[in-house]
Amino acid sequence: MCGIAGAYGVENASRIVSQMLKALQHRGQEAAGIVSSDGSKLYAVKGSGLADEVFNHVDFAAALPGRSAIGHLRYATSGDSGSKESIQPFTAELRQNRWFALVHNGNLTNHLPLRERLQDGGAIFRSHSDSEIFLHLRARAMAMDLPAQLRESFAAIEGAYALLGLSLDAFYAAVDPQGFRPLVMAPYQGGWLFASESCALDLFRVSGTPVAQGELIELSASGKNSWSFGDRSRLRQCSFEHIYFARPDSNVYGRSVYRVRVTLGKILARKVRVPDAARERSIVIAVPDSSNIEALYFARETGLPFEFGLIRNHYMGRTFITPEQEARELGVRMKLNAVEAVVADRSIYVVDDSLVRGTTGRKVASLLREAGAREVHMCISSPPVKHPCHWGIDTPERKQLIAAEATTEEIARSMGVDSLTYLSVDELHEALEDPDGTHHCTSCFTTVRPVTGQLLPPEHLIRPPSH
Amino acid sequence: MCGIAGAYGVENASRIVSQMLKALQHRGQEAAGIVSSDGSKLYAVKGSGLADEVFNHVDFAAALPGRSAIGHLRYATSGDSGSKESIQPFTAELRQNRWFALVHNGNLTNHLPLRERLQDGGAIFRSHSDSEIFLHLRARAMAMDLPAQLRESFAAIEGAYALLGLSLDAFYAAVDPQGFRPLVMAPYQGGWLFASESCALDLFRVSGTPVAQGELIELSASGKNSWSFGDRSRLRQCSFEHIYFARPDSNVYGRSVYRVRVTLGKILARKVRVPDAARERSIVIAVPDSSNIEALYFARETGLPFEFGLIRNHYMGRTFITPEQEARELGVRMKLNAVEAVVADRSIYVVDDSLVRGTTGRKVASLLREAGAREVHMCISSPPVKHPCHWGIDTPERKQLIAAEATTEEIARSMGVDSLTYLSVDELHEALEDPDGTHHCTSCFTTVRPVTGQLLPPEHLIRPPSH
Amino acid sequence: MCGIAGAYGVENASRIVSQMLKALQHRGQEAAGIVSSDGSKLYAVKGSGLADEVFNHVDFAAALPGRSAIGHLRYATSGDSGSKESIQPFTAELRQNRWFALVHNGNLTNHLPLRERLQDGGAIFRSHSDSEIFLHLRARAMAMDLPAQLRESFAAIEGAYALLGLSLDAFYAAVDPQGFRPLVMAPYQGGWLFASESCALDLFRVSGTPVAQGELIELSASGKNSWSFGDRSRLRQCSFEHIYFARPDSNVYGRSVYRVRVTLGKILARKVRVPDAARERSIVIAVPDSSNIEALYFARETGLPFEFGLIRNHYMGRTFITPEQEARELGVRMKLNAVEAVVADRSIYVVDDSLVRGTTGRKVASLLREAGAREVHMCISSPPVKHPCHWGIDTPERKQLIAAEATTEEIARSMGVDSLTYLSVDELHEALEDPDGTHHCTSCFTTVRPVTGQLLPPEHLIRPPSH
Amino acid sequence: MCGIAGAYGVENASRIVSQMLKALQHRGQEAAGIVSSDGSKLYAVKGSGLADEVFNHVDFAAALPGRSAIGHLRYATSGDSGSKESIQPFTAELRQNRWFALVHNGNLTNHLPLRERLQDGGAIFRSHSDSEIFLHLRARAMAMDLPAQLRESFAAIEGAYALLGLSLDAFYAAVDPQGFRPLVMAPYQGGWLFASESCALDLFRVSGTPVAQGELIELSASGKNSWSFGDRSRLRQCSFEHIYFARPDSNVYGRSVYRVRVTLGKILARKVRVPDAARERSIVIAVPDSSNIEALYFARETGLPFEFGLIRNHYMGRTFITPEQEARELGVRMKLNAVEAVVADRSIYVVDDSLVRGTTGRKVASLLREAGAREVHMCISSPPVKHPCHWGIDTPERKQLIAAEATTEEIARSMGVDSLTYLSVDELHEALEDPDGTHHCTSCFTTVRPVTGQLLPPEHLIRPPSH
Repeated sequence: MCGIAGAYGVENASRIVSQMLKALQHRGQEAAGIVSSDGSKLYAVKGSGLADEVFNHVDFAAALPGRSAIGHLRYATSGDSGSKESIQPFTAELRQNRWFALVHNGNLTNHLPLRERLQDGGAIFRSHSDSEIFLHLRARAMAMDLPAQLRESFAAIEGAYALLGLSLDAFYAAVDPQGFRPLVMAPYQGGWLFASESCALDLFRVSGTPVAQGELIELSASGKNSWSFGDRSRLRQCSFEHIYFARPDSNVYGRSVYRVRVTLGKILARKVRVPDAARERSIVIAVPDSSNIEALYFARETGLPFEFGLIRNHYMGRTFITPEQEARELGVRMKLNAVEAVVADRSIYVVDDSLVRGTTGRKVASLLREAGAREVHMCISSPPVKHPCHWGIDTPERKQLIAAEATTEEIARSMGVDSLTYLSVDELHEALEDPDGTHHCTSCFTTVRPVTGQLLPPEHLIRPPSH
Repeated sequence: MCGIAGAYGVENASRIVSQMLKALQHRGQEAAGIVSSDGSKLYAVKGSGLADEVFNHVDFAAALPGRSAIGHLRYATSGDSGSKESIQPFTAELRQNRWFALVHNGNLTNHLPLRERLQDGGAIFRSHSDSEIFLHLRARAMAMDLPAQLRESFAAIEGAYALLGLSLDAFYAAVDPQGFRPLVMAPYQGGWLFASESCALDLFRVSGTPVAQGELIELSASGKNSWSFGDRSRLRQCSFEHIYFARPDSNVYGRSVYRVRVTLGKILARKVRVPDAARERSIVIAVPDSSNIEALYFARETGLPFEFGLIRNHYMGRTFITPEQEARELGVRMKLNAVEAVVADRSIYVVDDSLVRGTTGRKVASLLREAGAREVHMCISSPPVKHPCHWGIDTPERKQLIAAEATTEEIARSMGVDSLTYLSVDELHEALEDPDGTHHCTSCFTTVRPVTGQLLPPEHLIRPPSH
Repeated sequence: MCGIAGAYGVENASRIVSQMLKALQHRGQEAAGIVSSDGSKLYAVKGSGLADEVFNHVDFAAALPGRSAIGHLRYATSGDSGSKESIQPFTAELRQNRWFALVHNGNLTNHLPLRERLQDGGAIFRSHSDSEIFLHLRARAMAMDLPAQLRESFAAIEGAYALLGLSLDAFYAAVDPQGFRPLVMAPYQGGWLFASESCALDLFRVSGTPVAQGELIELSASGKNSWSFGDRSRLRQCSFEHIYFARPDSNVYGRSVYRVRVTLGKILARKVRVPDAARERSIVIAVPDSSNIEALYFARETGLPFEFGLIRNHYMGRTFITPEQEARELGVRMKLNAVEAVVADRSIYVVDDSLVRGTTGRKVASLLREAGAREVHMCISSPPVKHPCHWGIDTPERKQLIAAEATTEEIARSMGVDSLTYLSVDELHEALEDPDGTHHCTSCFTTVRPVTGQLLPPEHLIRPPSH
Repeated sequence: MCGIAGAYGVENASRIVSQMLKALQHRGQEAAGIVSSDGSKLYAVKGSGLADEVFNHVDFAAALPGRSAIGHLRYATSGDSGSKESIQPFTAELRQNRWFALVHNGNLTNHLPLRERLQDGGAIFRSHSDSEIFLHLRARAMAMDLPAQLRESFAAIEGAYALLGLSLDAFYAAVDPQGFRPLVMAPYQGGWLFASESCALDLFRVSGTPVAQGELIELSASGKNSWSFGDRSRLRQCSFEHIYFARPDSNVYGRSVYRVRVTLGKILARKVRVPDAARERSIVIAVPDSSNIEALYFARETGLPFEFGLIRNHYMGRTFITPEQEARELGVRMKLNAVEAVVADRSIYVVDDSLVRGTTGRKVASLLREAGAREVHMCISSPPVKHPCHWGIDTPERKQLIAAEATTEEIARSMGVDSLTYLSVDELHEALEDPDGTHHCTSCFTTVRPVTGQLLPPEHLIRPPSH
């Protein structure tokens, strides 16, 4: 899903971007990179691993000088695991020493036909990333200045993109016409900061405003310019950012993630009926940490006590090559452990933000039962996930989605829980304060294409990599 | 403070130990190591970093073969930062191919005079770790068999130690006569598992019993033997394990950490009086994650709502070399962020497990105020820390302890909070179900030596490294 | 100057190429790379350092499978020191899964205008290497099949190239129309081997024939095809290969390097008059190892004794970052040492293959004097180097060439030698058995362009990197 | 066989030592290390590989400060391949902050019983190197000052050692009573330099004098002291240093290696009779580079022409893990190639310094024959090697020595040469100007123990590692 950050016209631009990337680390842990400009040259530092690791010993003033910089965090996807060529920012040198670098969050849905058409024209790609499309389109654009070249490029592109660009002397930010992915900006010390989420701006005690759908911004010595582009008649903000992906202390799309999760938890609680006989022994727990807030407000709404019944090992899950055997034997136990003192003999209402494959949910249920839980009621603060996302959330293929074909009862049975409660799509829209359901993308729940309104095909032949 | 784990007489002993180390990772992140025995040779894999990193690509069957193994996690201490020679297990080859390896959690209080006396006899030390003392004492012991040599060694040693030892054909476990540091053991698949905390045994669905104070256990082809040693008239279990160090899903010293923290939160709540006028706008938050449970039960006892008002960035704090400037500018913001939607305009009761230097507390207070908190009341679920620990908890020098000399009022003022509440030592004993205060070490709070009952000196000249 | 090797249609193709690269290691020590094809995919292993280091732990069957492979050794040039993107083979994926890889030895003289024209058409380059031009020209070629696309590409290119190419199912070899750089081929076990010099073929006990000027060879399942291309009216084999660059046990351009050097030494000897009075105390030494043969035959022709008066430290000069101070203080002493027992009190005729900057020569003279030499006579088995090479030999800028402007007497004086003898260009042609001087490129000595016959400009603005 | 170097009382001591190590690189390529002292602390940099690699990026002033330093080059031996603990210098901290570091060239013949006796007293060894013995003996010595402790240690030791030692404020050099291994010293800029061979001193334009047999030297603020120790009635300088090991531009034991090799070549020539009929077609070649000088003077003495008939690939043989298959198939061809233009149709007198296993000799013979040689006459400038060395030259076990049991005729036949000529032990002594054969160790040729005069046993059970 990836995270991006940028700084224009400020001292220590690259160090500031590295700090914002650390605050956005939950959006991507596979690789990190920054490109800076000092007006006459671009500088790059990129590497595999956390931002904290990639930039650990970097002397920013020497390695990434200048007053503007852009950075990217790469999310590990199954298909395209970590070739060095795929680490962003991507950089190109066009004729006459015109350098350009960019970072991109989102997925382009027409990148395969575009790639073929560009290759027919002699383009040589260095990676399989759809983000490289932007570079090639711009290199071939007929327009004379860079903002116009970018808009010419956007005209050919379909899909989701929040992007930041850097030339030697200017800085660019853009969001696609449907506004799929979040991007905030804020003035800072005479310049500007940009980030996927506001939690990165909080570091510098500034609060941001969202970049609008179909908006291209240019910052340069001659000030700030902006252009609208594309058909902005549909707004399709990603509902999964609020459900799971963004940090709860962030605002995304101008709305507090924490508050949305409070509402999700409350609405979910309304759907659950706790039998009076079981009320005494019933507790609410979260699958930490992504559903903490939903679970707390679920508890408050139902009147049941909230407990910390599962403990997460925060040191795990950092290395991506886990021996098969370890995974098979110990499974989720390396990441989560049940607190017997809490769950033994209880009826557990366990709240999770979503069920994708169902693997974790199934194992949580069994962990709780082994620790002595009498009943396990699974409560999911989102609707059933029925289709992969093609606009930037990394989800598995359709056949691996537990809810793709099955009914709620079948899922509950397969997971070994006593009950399973989902939100409906309408209830999700309610929590997002979008009663008509016109402003958010919910295609992974509805299988309806966010732009055309057509049904999605059963499965895309080739799924683009996620950024 | 370090963590240790061991396995005897089981298949895949070294892999099992690596998994237990991962479950104990909170006890030490600086370095990790395992030594295994296949009956004819010892094998070692050691390195800097998390267990997950050190053992990531290890082929256990090839690199660490055999049915017994011991492992160690090293806690980063300021003084002795990470020389390779200090990574445990320590191994020695004595005459006649008699190999011995050991891991040690705890501090030896007389290791400096012992080291000098051993050097006088010609001993050459390879590290500055006090744990190396055990190897040299055993090498010089007059007793004829290994268990007797170990007891002869223990007779010279004062201080805290939970240790595991490995010879080519036997396995050893011991805890010092005062029982300072925790160690649990459990039968598993015909053999035995050992770990600092029970959460590591939970991976294998076995529950452990504590190794007793002054107990030496030998496991070998001829079965299990055990010996008592030393003056076991005083029991001095570390109270800080319950307050902060151990995982809440663990049992240590035979007691549930979760339950102790529930009681700590409840007792703390009794000491706080929330004015009626302020009740409406008051909430309780934890400094996540170590005081979550105390805060939850503090809230329940006071009747105030519990909220997730601080969000922790779990990806930070992994690299120990943080640029000074970053630390100075952004401070605790890289690790913690306040949720404005939660704290704005509220009176905040923020619960933390302890105040050591006071740095984090001071910055939390300022984070909350900047996010709009009207009042900040700091509630600490332990007594004021007045003295460094010499028995295995890594604490700074006395002059850096905020409570070493100051009164509670002075501390509150210096931290910029509206009120500050500590537990008393008696209340701590109450939570530990040790009403006479005879079973736990509280010397960091009382400055009374745990064994002799004398007052500790103002500051030790040289503080031993922590294991 | 770089070295290339390839194998088509043989077992263990990539391992064989790695071994040939090791035999060609004197042609480039900065980086090494191999790409192999198993018919359905291309595989690459590349890295900085010697072939021996880059391929040290490579499992060829797993990492570089298939029956065809090409490899490259990169020569360290001052300008473009070692960016990873510049390590060959270069690989591109064209539309419809059409992969192509190539390696190139030589320099393209019109690569800058070509690069600009390609960038105007939207091409994005990944390196500053002129070799990347081939990929882009081929990607844009209008011809329908690969051999035709290559010839279409060659038609746009001026300069020197010996190149090997690999598609999924075919293998290509080509030499430019003037035949600047050497390339030999030999049948081997039903397939073919290619290498810059015959010493690489000697490993496999096969002897090669040169690929002709302006010849393109295709090897595929349908056998061997070849095409002539370009204006082959001028043959311009590099004279420096014989003078210095090639190994003496090689044949290049079908001629024994050893025999050419024998003749160079003999002709040089004819030009030197040893005074009878000094004959007794006179000896001949080489600057080891590149002028050993010339010196030996110089000695035989003059009747003076040959001695090993300078000892080379073969372990030096492997790391390219030498501390300035070390270079300044110890200079050539780290690489060469005079044998006092040999040179003290003697008149020394020291034979070297060429003088480029003159740095080594100057230091050799001073080394010999300090070791007690009475006279130092410098004898150079090639003409004065007056101009940088633009066809593949890495030479410094004109102003750094000691002979660019100075007379022989001035050079002798500046080097502190008692006499200095060069070969003339005609004598060089004589040694090359090219009495009319029509078959070899001697532009570095004559400053006459090898193709057009015009004078070279004083200095090229931007010198292309050397391959 | 290893090389050592040291500097006392000079600016940039550690950098100077690193440069001397580079000049001694032929004595050991496996590992390199330096320890320096600035009077209050010892500093160490050690690593695997060439000195050039280990010290490539070292900032000497920061990492190895101070005005005294010692360094070591480790020779790769088969048995003890490269454990990190075995890289010298070895360092120990004795009581009262008394640090001591040492480097050692040579082998101790009684190190196994000494090691056992030390272990009986409780010593814990960190390596299997015999050099560690010195540290333990000194740690246990009863004498009060360091020079006396060293002499007390030497009294227990038998075997060969040239060593350098460093305490915080003094510098030590010693050679064993029989003077097996070479060590030279020279005053330099108010201090002193030490090295295994004089070629390392040549870098600094100073000439050295040998440290005497049984001499201990101390350099400190109070000047230079020296002591004699042990039974110095026998002098046993290693003859192999002159035959093969030392650089020809060095003096060792006060004698020019070049001059000794000249004489070896001349004496060898006297033993060979070239048939008149074959004289026309006969040439002399060396196996480069170690027998260049012998071959040149062999040629001059016989009147036959000297030629460069074998070309060595100096880039090979740097990596010690050569794939078996490569070794088997290509054998010595990766290192040596015959020049067909030189050897075809000739009778070749090929001179080599020694035959140990005979592997290279056998392959050289076959290389020459395949290149067309009519006859191959092998001429060895030393006697048959009949026994492994126990005093510091790394030789294989007795059964692998080609001359251990076989006659010269049998060896010639097994090597496939037309004739084989060795020197006798008396002729070797003649070349060493030691007519009575009393000053040199020739035990590998005679199997007579150098100290006791007894015959060596057929094979030592455990061969000590070589330093």
